[in-house]
Order: sequence, then C-alpha cells, then structure tokens
Amino acid sequence: MPTPVVLDCDPGHDDAIAILLAAGSPEIDLRAITTVAANQTLDKVTANAQRICSAAGISVPIARGCAQPLVRPLYVAEDIHGESGMDGPAFGPLTVGVTEEHAIDVMHAHMPATLVATGALTNVAMYLRRYGPAAVREIVLMGGSTERGNTTPYAEFNIYVDPEAAAIVFGSGVPITMIGLNVTHRALVTPEIVAQLNALGPLGRTCGELMTFFAATYRDVFGFAAPPLHDPVAVARVIDPTLVTCVEAFVGIETTGTFTRGATVVDLHGRLGREPNAQVAVGLDVDRFFDLVVAAVAQLT
Amino acid sequence: MPTPVVLDCDPGHDDAIAILLAAGSPEIDLRAITTVAANQTLDKVTANAQRICSAAGISVPIARGCAQPLVRPLYVAEDIHGESGMDGPAFGPLTVGVTEEHAIDVMHAHMPATLVATGALTNVAMYLRRYGPAAVREIVLMGGSTERGNTTPYAEFNIYVDPEAAAIVFGSGVPITMIGLNVTHRALVTPEIVAQLNALGPLGRTCGELMTFFAATYRDVFGFAAPPLHDPVAVARVIDPTLVTCVEAFVGIETTGTFTRGATVVDLHGRLGREPNAQVAVGLDVDRFFDLVVAAVAQLT
Amino acid sequence: MPTPVVLDCDPGHDDAIAILLAAGSPEIDLRAITTVAANQTLDKVTANAQRICSAAGISVPIARGCAQPLVRPLYVAEDIHGESGMDGPAFGPLTVGVTEEHAIDVMHAHMPATLVATGALTNVAMYLRRYGPAAVREIVLMGGSTERGNTTPYAEFNIYVDPEAAAIVFGSGVPITMIGLNVTHRALVTPEIVAQLNALGPLGRTCGELMTFFAATYRDVFGFAAPPLHDPVAVARVIDPTLVTCVEAFVGIETTGTFTRGATVVDLHGRLGREPNAQVAVGLDVDRFFDLVVAAVAQLT
Amino acid sequence: MPTPVVLDCDPGHDDAIAILLAAGSPEIDLRAITTVAANQTLDKVTANAQRICSAAGISVPIARGCAQPLVRPLYVAEDIHGESGMDGPAFGPLTVGVTEEHAIDVMHAHMPATLVATGALTNVAMYLRRYGPAAVREIVLMGGSTERGNTTPYAEFNIYVDPEAAAIVFGSGVPITMIGLNVTHRALVTPEIVAQLNALGPLGRTCGELMTFFAATYRDVFGFAAPPLHDPVAVARVIDPTLVTCVEAFVGIETTGTFTRGATVVDLHGRLGREPNAQVAVGLDVDRFFDLVVAAVAQLT
Repeated sequence: MPTPVVLDCDPGHDDAIAILLAAGSPEIDLRAITTVAANQTLDKVTANAQRICSAAGISVPIARGCAQPLVRPLYVAEDIHGESGMDGPAFGPLTVGVTEEHAIDVMHAHMPATLVATGALTNVAMYLRRYGPAAVREIVLMGGSTERGNTTPYAEFNIYVDPEAAAIVFGSGVPITMIGLNVTHRALVTPEIVAQLNALGPLGRTCGELMTFFAATYRDVFGFAAPPLHDPVAVARVIDPTLVTCVEAFVGIETTGTFTRGATVVDLHGRLGREPNAQVAVGLDVDRFFDLVVAAVAQLT
Repeated sequence: MPTPVVLDCDPGHDDAIAILLAAGSPEIDLRAITTVAANQTLDKVTANAQRICSAAGISVPIARGCAQPLVRPLYVAEDIHGESGMDGPAFGPLTVGVTEEHAIDVMHAHMPATLVATGALTNVAMYLRRYGPAAVREIVLMGGSTERGNTTPYAEFNIYVDPEAAAIVFGSGVPITMIGLNVTHRALVTPEIVAQLNALGPLGRTCGELMTFFAATYRDVFGFAAPPLHDPVAVARVIDPTLVTCVEAFVGIETTGTFTRGATVVDLHGRLGREPNAQVAVGLDVDRFFDLVVAAVAQLT
Repeated sequence: MPTPVVLDCDPGHDDAIAILLAAGSPEIDLRAITTVAANQTLDKVTANAQRICSAAGISVPIARGCAQPLVRPLYVAEDIHGESGMDGPAFGPLTVGVTEEHAIDVMHAHMPATLVATGALTNVAMYLRRYGPAAVREIVLMGGSTERGNTTPYAEFNIYVDPEAAAIVFGSGVPITMIGLNVTHRALVTPEIVAQLNALGPLGRTCGELMTFFAATYRDVFGFAAPPLHDPVAVARVIDPTLVTCVEAFVGIETTGTFTRGATVVDLHGRLGREPNAQVAVGLDVDRFFDLVVAAVAQLT
Repeated sequence: MPTPVVLDCDPGHDDAIAILLAAGSPEIDLRAITTVAANQTLDKVTANAQRICSAAGISVPIARGCAQPLVRPLYVAEDIHGESGMDGPAFGPLTVGVTEEHAIDVMHAHMPATLVATGALTNVAMYLRRYGPAAVREIVLMGGSTERGNTTPYAEFNIYVDPEAAAIVFGSGVPITMIGLNVTHRALVTPEIVAQLNALGPLGRTCGELMTFFAATYRDVFGFAAPPLHDPVAVARVIDPTLVTCVEAFVGIETTGTFTRGATVVDLHGRLGREPNAQVAVGLDVDRFFDLVVAAVAQLT
C-alpha cells in the first residue's frame, strides 16, 4: 500500500527531480504539491511546479502557499537556481493549473499523510499552527546539516530562509526526519547519471538539462565537481527508509545568533541535555538512491 | 455609517468590557469576535467570550483561533485574571455558541474591516501570512508601551506572549495604531466608575464585579490604587479617534534580547533612523473614554 | 573624614562639572581622575580633563584608560558634546599633565576608595577583571534608566557604548548605586542656575559657557527646555547620600537585543525573580543638589 | 634565531605537552608562561603549570592571569581533564614558583613576541585592551573549528568559555592563526606514540601517563579511539609553519546565539562578505608533528 504524501516544495532544480521521484515511484501516493517562496518567489516556484508536472504528465493538485517567511524578509537563491528558479531547459506549454485553495488547506484536505518538505518550512509551520499537528503522520524534510551549511558557514538554505518556521516544526512533536547537507552532499549527480537520464527520452533530457545548469552553479559558487541532488533524498527516505541511515537527536534551531541564524544545532553527542526531537540522516546508499531516481523518470516517460 | 470591526481578544476582564464597548456603541458594526490564547488558555478565553456575550445578549459569531503563540510556549496571566481568566462574577448559562470555523477564516469572511486586537497577536499574524494584508483596513491593538512594561520591566503582556507575531504585524504595512500601557495606565477604574456601572442593572453589576476582582489583583501585583482598563481604549479609538492622541513613530519589536523579549521599542525621537510603522498613542481623554464605556453598557442593558 | 574617591569619566560637559563638584566639596577626597573613551575619543576626553583641571587649579593625578569599549567599536556623542567633546568655552593653557600609568593601575594605587564612574564602564570592568573587586568600597555610576533611554529608546549612552563592561560591573558583587536618566533628567540647569554660576568669576563663567552649549544641543536633539546635569548627581550621591532616594533592585544589562542593546532592565516590581544587585536612584532633591554644585564652584574660585 | 614566545595556557593535559614542546624546541625562545582559568580554576591550572615545569626542569617565569571569563561565569572541563585539571601522573615536589605580577603585565614585559594561546582567550583580550595590539607580533591560538565543536555542537571549549574575549582577539587586527578541532582531531596520540614517550625516561613516562588519562576521558565522552593533542599543534605551527596548512578567512565569533554561543563561524566560501581576519588551519602533517613532540620531550630529559 503506497504511502500518502503531500510534497511541499519550491522548485528549484532538485525539487523538480523530487516531484518526479514522488510521482514516478509506486511506493508513494502523491496527493498534492504545495509551493512556498524560497529558491525563488512564490509566483516563480509555482510556475516551475506547473512546468515540471506538465512536462511529466503529473496531474495532482498544485496549491500556492506562503509568499514570504513568517518573520523575516524573503531571501532567494538566484545564484544557485537562476532567474526563473529552474533555469536550464526550455519547457513546453503548461497543461496543468493551480488550485485556488491555499496550500495549508490543501495539505489538510489530504491528511492523514506524510509531509515531505523540500523548501523553507513556512507552509508547514503555518499548517501546524492552523490545524494542529494531529493529522500529520510524519514530516520528512530536506534542510539543515550536522556539519557546515551552504548559505552561511553553519546554515543551510531552507532553514536559513525561515528559521522561526523551522523552530515551530522541530518543536511540534510530529515525528521528524531531517535530511541535511551532510547526507545530500554525497548524492552527487555524476556525468554518468546525467547520461542515464538523457537516454530516457524527452523527460530524461529535461532532467539532464536541469542537472547541467545546476552543475554549473554548484561548480562556480561552491567549487563542487558535480551537483548534489538534495531534495529527492527526502522523497527516497519515504520510498525506502533503509536507504538513509538516521540517528535520533535533539536539533535546536538557531533563531537569534549574529552569525549563525538558521543553524540546525544537531546534538549528536548529547551535550545539551535535551530530549531528541528528530531522526537525523547520517548515511545514504548513494547507488540505490540514484537507481530510484532513474527508475522514476523512466516510469513517467 | 458604523465602522466594521472584528475583535480579536482573550477575555480577560478588560477584554470583556472591550466586547461590551464594541457591541454597545453605534459607531461600531461588530461583525465577529475571535479568540486567542494569552490571558488564559484558548478554551478558557473562548468560554469567557461566550459568557460575556450571553450575559449581554450579544449574538455575533465567536470563533476560536490559535491555542499557542507562533514560536514560544504559552505564558498566561493567571496572577492577573485568575484561574478562569475572568474570575469574579458568577455567570449564567451560555446562550451563544462558537462557530466551527477558525478565527482567521472568520476574520477574512468579514473583511474589509478594522481589526481590533486586545490579546497576543498570534491570530492577526496568522491571518496576515495566510490571507495577506490587503483586506485589512486598519489594525488597532492594545499592547506594548512607550515606557515600562508590566510583564517584564520593558515588555507588556500581549507583546511578551508572542513577540514574533507582533513583529509580523508591525512589519505588515497595514495601518497600525498601538495603544500601550503609557496610555491605558491612565484609564483607571475608580470606585465612582464602578458605582456608575453597578447602577446599570445586572449587566452593569457583572461589570462591577469584574472590575472589583481586577482591582484586587492590580493592587496586589502592581500596587495600583485602581485597575487600568487597557483593552477598551483600543475600541474607543475606533469609536472616536479624537479620544486618543497619537504620534507617528517606528516601533521595533524585540524578539532576541536576554532581558527584553517582547519590548516595543518606540522611537519617539527618531534615533534609529527607521521609517514610522505605527500611530502610537500618547494621550487619552479619560473622562470621555469612561463616558463611552458606561453608555455602551447602558445601551446593552 | 572625607570619602576617598577615584573619578572615572569622559569629559564631557557634565563630567567637567562632576570633576569640579568632587574637587570642590570637602566631603570628598578626590584622589585621581581617570579617563575613558565615550563622549569623545580617549585623546579628546583626556585633554578635556586637563583643561577643566587647569582652569580650576585641580592638581590630582589624571590617567588615561581604555580607548575603546571591551567588545564593540567606539560610538561617540559628538551630537551632544561637540567635536572636542567639551565645546563651548575657550580654555587657557594646560597647567596639569597626564601620568604615564594606565587608569586601572592608578585606580588600584588609590584603593580602597569609592569609584565614581560617569562614562562608559570599560575602565571599571577592566579594573575588576585585572585586580578583582575586593578593594573597591563602592561604585556610584551615572548610567542607565528605569524608564526610557537617550541614545536608543531604551538605552542610555554610557551603558549603550559598552554594555559588556556594564554587565561585568553589575555582576561583580561590589555595592553599586545606579544614577539613571529617570533622576538626572530632573537636574535641569535653568537660566537662574547659569546666572548663579556666571556670578562666580572666571571659573563660574566657564561653567556657564559649558552649560550654554549643552543647553543648545539638548534643545536641538531632544527638545529639552534646559539641559540635564547627569554626571554630577553621581558625585552628589557620595557627598550626601540623602540627596538621592534609591530602591534596591536587580538590574539586568541587555547585551544581545536587536533594538535594546545597552538597556538597563531595572526590575522594580520583582518580575524577574533575581536577587537585587544595585541601589537604583528614583528621587533627587534638586534644589540641594544645585546648591552643592554652586558651592563647589565657588570653593574652587 | 629562535622565535620569542609567551605561552598563555590552562594546563590541562595537552597544554602540558604544549609547554614541553615550546620549552624543548630550539626554534622557540619561551619567555614566560601565563595561566588562565578554563580547563580548571586558575589556582589549579597554575599549580599544573608549576608541576609540569618542575618535572621538566623548565625555569621560565610563570604568572597568573584571569580567574574568570570577561562576562560569563566560569565553565570548566572537569569531565575531560579531571578534578585537578591534569589528572593521571603523580608529580614530585614543586621546584618553580609563580611571579607576583599579573599575566598581562608579564606578557607585556616580554613583548615584542608571539603569543601562543591554548586556553580561553581572557588574558589575551585583557592584554589587548590594556596595552593595545602594537607589540604583539602574532597570535597563534588553539580554539574553534571549521566544522563541529566539542563542548556544544558548534562550539569548541576554549572559545565557548569566553566568546567575548575571542571576539576581542579576532577583531584586534593582530595577525591571528587559528588552530581548530578540524585539524587537532587528526593529531591522535596512538599507543605507538605513547610507547615512544614512555621510552624517554621519567619525563616521558609522565607524558605517557597524561596521555593515558586523556585517552580514557576522550574515549568515554566522545568515543575517540585515541586522544587528540590539541594545544601542541599551535606551538608546532610556530616552530615550523609548514607543518600546518592554512587558508585566510573571516572568522566571526558568535556571542549571542541561543544554541551557538562560542561558535567560530569560519567563512571558507566568502558567503558573509567580510574581510579575512585570520589564517585558519585546514591541514596538518601529523607524522612530523609528533616527531617534534617526541624530540622536545627527549631534549628536556
């Protein structure tokens, strides 16, 4: 029986692949896609969700969520994802629309379900304060790091954009799995994987073009030899939990530091004397992960 | 033409009088009452809203809002408002119910309107992030201070309870009027005013009993000779703006201090170099204010 | 038997009068003057200490202290005290020099004594960490407020400039008396007092010219009708403790707020549950205070 | 010509080896040892400095510094270094004393010199504010991390103990080399190295016993197979800069975070847009490092 999932995202190159992985995997019953401002503005990331769903023939409801973080002004990742938020491929005409309902109401209409969050946690936090945590089975999120960040030395982008939302989520009591940079930085899209994607026809080539653009910005900004496929790892964790090794730990969200806003302070050695509030990913079966991604794209082709 | 108003509150002794003032004044079209956890838990303050509306024959919709602040744990004012949140009078049976809709959805159903907020700003902030600011004509709130606070040396209770919500509200761009302790501490309910209320029949005597309890806690906790009628001043400002003198100023909400969480930093002398974001009350015509309160209770009797 | 005093200051118009009050009062044995950067740079405030001592024939040792706050960059009050830090009068040639020893070593050479501090608390904090608190009888400081500040809405200048130093001082266990704006704003130098000073000869006229400049900046920046004589109130407290009414309270120094850095959080109503760490001035006998000031200037003439 | 060095430390097992390395290496002219509270109280770490110097026949001046951090209460590492701060060996009678002068005055008496700091940075910060930075050639410090910390998830012990002092040091403009956990965690004292030390006679066996105790606490607290020899790496950097690979970067010291106090935020990828303020160690020639340590102990034997 497939796991019901609502995917909250901000496409974004890797979010696009996360959508394909969720929609193309039989283990997941993708019920809705909700969008949140982060990688780019809400208008742009919503259009991007429509683009990738149109390209892949995915027809689940798409709903717009919050256009800005709870308390902070919006900070977007144009340096990584380009002006559109999903630069690279030329997309065809849109074949799917957007529902008029708000993301948090659409989320609730599909509960109980697993919430997979691959953008800033604004929508998820709003949902929790509006509807309460009871109907959410689990939250699996891409965000944070047990080590260094990518937006500032200790903050990963999704958490940096809305640390107060992250504090709400990690304090909610819902079972949480955090997939951080310490793991996603191992999911590097090598030229071999791009070649596998390109061999899958038009949708595969679109994926390949997304990855080619992403490779260029990761090389220029961070000096990476190949780009990391962050968001799909969260989806993969739902498909097959054995792909991602986790440890239980307390994760404190830094909302007040001068240099550390948005840090996920993962207490791996129990120094802070707090109860664990998350399963924190520490390992990934990289080969099986990419097998899932390629299989999902093939399935949608 | 009366001003359409949604009153977001946490009754609360002075919130109860604010409800009566709004419902009993012809200048206001009270469309809905929404509740928020602060003076007491959401269940208690909602029951209190039902109690005062039942006692006064007020039949506007009552809707429950948020049961806790955005990011912080709930901190209630049991020392001031008692175990029920509205200790003192014995109330009769409830004659009004509570709608099943959430406060923020009820707010939106009655927009465009003026939002009068006399509790923590959690619902208002949630409304702004869910529906955006466009439909709110104005927010008139009781909260903060240009001088000292009442919960900590520099923080007033409503802002202290949910400073992140306050930061959202003051940063929203909606026209805001802040009615702080610097003004409400002049609205002292003297024995003469209690006598006037008591003379108005059963509802007046209920008001008198509320004020008698409130007087006792204000005397014990703060050493006040008479209790301040905070929340109705915000309603009075809507009824007659000339009652409350205001200055335009930037108000910064302190969300990160060690000793100053929840302070409203009102830049009266332009030291911070920021654009004004609020009308800040600095004066009150006390006599006319109490005339309005007594007249409204008389009207409802 | 006069009270031995080391006066740590940053002249500064009101610091200059504080020096005269200390040197011209028989109740005080002024042992040394130490300088600290705050109202202006260390070079300028030290020169100003020399100027006023030269003008008044005061020959106690003058020693330079810290040229910058402990952790923060220096912020000076040129808008209040002018380019020299003591604009207004024309001073004659210097007749007193500066010792080569550092302020904190000079302080220690004169202990046990009362430390009167009328600038940022950098030197005092350095002294406490270098020599320990044991030899200091008492610290009487001008700084902070129980109400609003003057540099930002809740921060007074001396504490704002070096809040970490203030945190050290208030946490030191030394008996502390805090003379804040809530009291010094009552010590307004009226034209009558200026006239009394002017009548005392050249030194009195220098004082009058200092006050005339100070009056102009206080009028322009804060809209005051007459300038407040902050620093001498701390000296007056040592001369005659009955001049200044105090209450015992916990004072928390805000070092981390976004808008409240440097606030002195005076817990007058015991809301914070902390042990008192200071005597906090809440009242001043204004007439007797100015009598002391005029008498001291007359004594030095 | 040997490099003049003042070693500021808090022995401490690895500080003791740092003292031996400095005293036993011909490239260093060890002029003084100064002590600071951190691993243990000032009394204990000073006694430990005397013990190791007595054991090794080292006769440089030893001076006591600050007994507590600048602003925070003292936090010691008894879980790592034991009750004495240097548990393990039985030491013989003391043959060296302690000077009466304060650490910061002793430092200055030996300037110009390189300051090697292997404890909390309280003394160094006090020195900089008391004497200014001009006479310090360079500061080489063990502290911080480019990755995770050891006291909290993102804070290393020496910086955690006194973050304000660290902020002063990193903001001073003095050339700084930061030797953090990211490098010192590679300097693991294997049984082979303990065996080499033990073979060097009584002093070597004392070193071996220090390392045996240190190995036990690192195994129990952090699960390390062998203990890291943190502090001597800073000394080794002075002996031979080529042993330690560094990159130039801005290091922000977090003084205000809720969960991140004391983090060294090393901006390796230039995300913060700040000028570099330190050379940050990123590599270590482990074998040559231990050769230096063993040679220094042999030299002192």
